[in-house]
Amino acid sequence: MSSLIPETFSDLLSREKKAFAFLALVKTDGSPQVTPIWFDYDGTYFNFNTARGRLKDRLLHRHPRVAFVIQDPQNPYRYMQISGRVVGETEEGAVEQICDLCEKYHGHRNYPLRPGETRVTYRVVPERIQTMG
Amino acid sequence: MSSLIPETFSDLLSREKKAFAFLALVKTDGSPQVTPIWFDYDGTYFNFNTARGRLKDRLLHRHPRVAFVIQDPQNPYRYMQISGRVVGETEEGAVEQICDLCEKYHGHRNYPLRPGETRVTYRVVPERIQTMG
Repeated sequence: MSSLIPETFSDLLSREKKAFAFLALVKTDGSPQVTPIWFDYDGTYFNFNTARGRLKDRLLHRHPRVAFVIQDPQNPYRYMQISGRVVGETEEGAVEQICDLCEKYHGHRNYPLRPGETRVTYRVVPERIQTMG
Repeated sequence: MSSLIPETFSDLLSREKKAFAFLALVKTDGSPQVTPIWFDYDGTYFNFNTARGRLKDRLLHRHPRVAFVIQDPQNPYRYMQISGRVVGETEEGAVEQICDLCEKYHGHRNYPLRPGETRVTYRVVPERIQTMG
């Protein structure tokens, strides 16, 4: 699946770029929701992290079809629109992953976990990519 | 409705900020779509502009519930999440409006209209706003 990402846009997925994903989900009432979110890309999957019970967790769990935009922070006219599907969710390693994301975006691993919260990683496979710019 | 926008975030809507809206729509098959788009805000309504027949046009026409994020281009951790509803669409003045948006974002009014395309303005009323940052 990594071949879906055009080489000329792969920099948007790098840790150095620190780009956000604008993740669109569909709520149970059929209306959309969109939120900026950290991500990592492992060459095959996009991995998102949230906490159990939050709206994002509930929507990703129920409605596996997602779409997101990753925009170049240095050039708003250069971006990828990606649609994909949740193919896995796991609590295993999810605290490690949010600390890893914290390191990517903030340069340190001390992510402020809330007492009692359970982190979860959602794995998304990209199915369609359009580029602009 | 203008009172929905917190005064401390109203700068994100200014012409000077040139912020994009990340507009989430729901496709006919129930999956989401998200795209960066120009907007203007007139104190009551958010106005978006597209061309007749494009996917955005078809989705805005059929599914009036929308959501969008407006993020501070200078600080990705500062943003508004807005959900709302399409309350009007018109071709009248839509060419003027896209030229006005072009002036906001590019500093000139020479928007490159395609031969034969019909522009349309969608008016969205914000119903719920959450802020971050």
